[in-house]
Amino acid sequence: MSKGTISILGLGAMGSAIAARLRETGYTTTVWNRTPAKTQPHVQAGANAAATIAEAVQSGDIVIAVLLDHASIHENLEPAAAELKGKVLVNVTTTTPNEARATAAWAAEHGITYLDGAIMAVPQMIGGAGSRLLYSGDENAYAIARPALETLGTAEYEGTDAGLASLKDMALLTAMYTMFTGVLQAAAMMRTVGVPAVQTAQDVTAWLNAVVPLAAPTVAVVDTGDYDPAPGQNVDFTNAAVTSLITAAREQGISAAHLEPLKRQLDELAATGRGTADWTSVIEQLTINR
Amino acid sequence: MSKGTISILGLGAMGSAIAARLRETGYTTTVWNRTPAKTQPHVQAGANAAATIAEAVQSGDIVIAVLLDHASIHENLEPAAAELKGKVLVNVTTTTPNEARATAAWAAEHGITYLDGAIMAVPQMIGGAGSRLLYSGDENAYAIARPALETLGTAEYEGTDAGLASLKDMALLTAMYTMFTGVLQAAAMMRTVGVPAVQTAQDVTAWLNAVVPLAAPTVAVVDTGDYDPAPGQNVDFTNAAVTSLITAAREQGISAAHLEPLKRQLDELAATGRGTADWTSVIEQLTINR
Repeated sequence: MSKGTISILGLGAMGSAIAARLRETGYTTTVWNRTPAKTQPHVQAGANAAATIAEAVQSGDIVIAVLLDHASIHENLEPAAAELKGKVLVNVTTTTPNEARATAAWAAEHGITYLDGAIMAVPQMIGGAGSRLLYSGDENAYAIARPALETLGTAEYEGTDAGLASLKDMALLTAMYTMFTGVLQAAAMMRTVGVPAVQTAQDVTAWLNAVVPLAAPTVAVVDTGDYDPAPGQNVDFTNAAVTSLITAAREQGISAAHLEPLKRQLDELAATGRGTADWTSVIEQLTINR
Repeated sequence: MSKGTISILGLGAMGSAIAARLRETGYTTTVWNRTPAKTQPHVQAGANAAATIAEAVQSGDIVIAVLLDHASIHENLEPAAAELKGKVLVNVTTTTPNEARATAAWAAEHGITYLDGAIMAVPQMIGGAGSRLLYSGDENAYAIARPALETLGTAEYEGTDAGLASLKDMALLTAMYTMFTGVLQAAAMMRTVGVPAVQTAQDVTAWLNAVVPLAAPTVAVVDTGDYDPAPGQNVDFTNAAVTSLITAAREQGISAAHLEPLKRQLDELAATGRGTADWTSVIEQLTINR
């Protein structure tokens, strides 16, 4: 017996993975895609295909949208607002937090129960042990959709603000891209003396495994705001260290562009008498229009 | 019986930790410090104190210098060049690679066997399991000093270029500060919705534990140079993702300064027809004066 019917809007790599996983775990699926040809493999695997979104969303209580971006969500869903009324709409399309909030406001206006989602996984990981999805927005929507969503990966509910899942996604991805940028900077430096990038990445990986666990204790001072005197490394010490890193990169003919914003922020703190404060107080320099 | 005599120049936190560890593992130590009072606890623990560097270096075959910076190395050691002749000089003072190379050249001129070192540990870690020290320069110096150096932590010899240990140190520290900067950026974003920095750091730590192992496979393409078509994420995809991260930060009133250099480099690649190349090809934008 089917566990229920779920409509999946959008059959790109991620939408297809989600539709397949839901079918494999006992759900009846109705699929829609802008290019109808992409529904064929799903129909062969047992899905119902819908010619329009209005038709797709009528067949079940839960609708999962996996479209290209925020604009495509509104372009495609607004004409089907009447049919979506009373349904649970789970939007896992990648958007910014404010876009998620805008969609939540639109949904509320039309009586749609809205949950926003962010997927911390690539399509191949959906349903696997490493798959993790963040959700925020309407609590009822989460309660209703949760059994189905948990088949996709570990589900985390962040709160009623629909922007929270996206914000956390963006924060984690920022930390990831920043980390990868550091690996590339290290590899660029070591490449000047003939060390392969993979070898440097392996060395950096071992080193990061040792220092990543220090991140939480290092930022504990941020939550107290008691930066001065510094519980950890102070601004002047860190500024000297970062200056050495910039000098070392340039000596090898490598740009230090990735380190320059940090150097500027440390300089700002030192120039305003905060050289003895904890260096993590650079976080206070990140707030725009203080 | 003593394993031999080692002179330690400089008794800051790191020099003191090194001197203490060498004594504890059976070496006779002669210590010198600019401020003689700092030698007292060492003398009480069994060290010999020397009034001058010339005197200090005469009592053994191995001299370990742990001074403030490159300038202090030359200011203090140049007057003792005659006494250092024929000795093994291990300089673990933090310097840039070119400073290490300059000291190696000076040492060679004066018949001093020179080894440069970089300490990947804080003083409290010296002699412990997590302590790691990198060395480069004269192979004989490393062979002679190795038994003593291995008491301080895992010893790694990087090659005959005296700048290599410092370069690798700088590359690893660059990756560390860049990673920490990403954590602070994530914490700044999440703080705008009331999430404590420590909680964000814990979330980021869990996420980095999942993605740091991807660093080596991700940069494998750098060593082949076959960037296009992209084996991994391409420039256009990554540029869209990084643009979203910048937008998300600014929506929350947070500076995106740390991501802007990466965005500029991706834009440069896209503007020169390399949008379909692997995004790690940004490493090629890091070489100055291509």
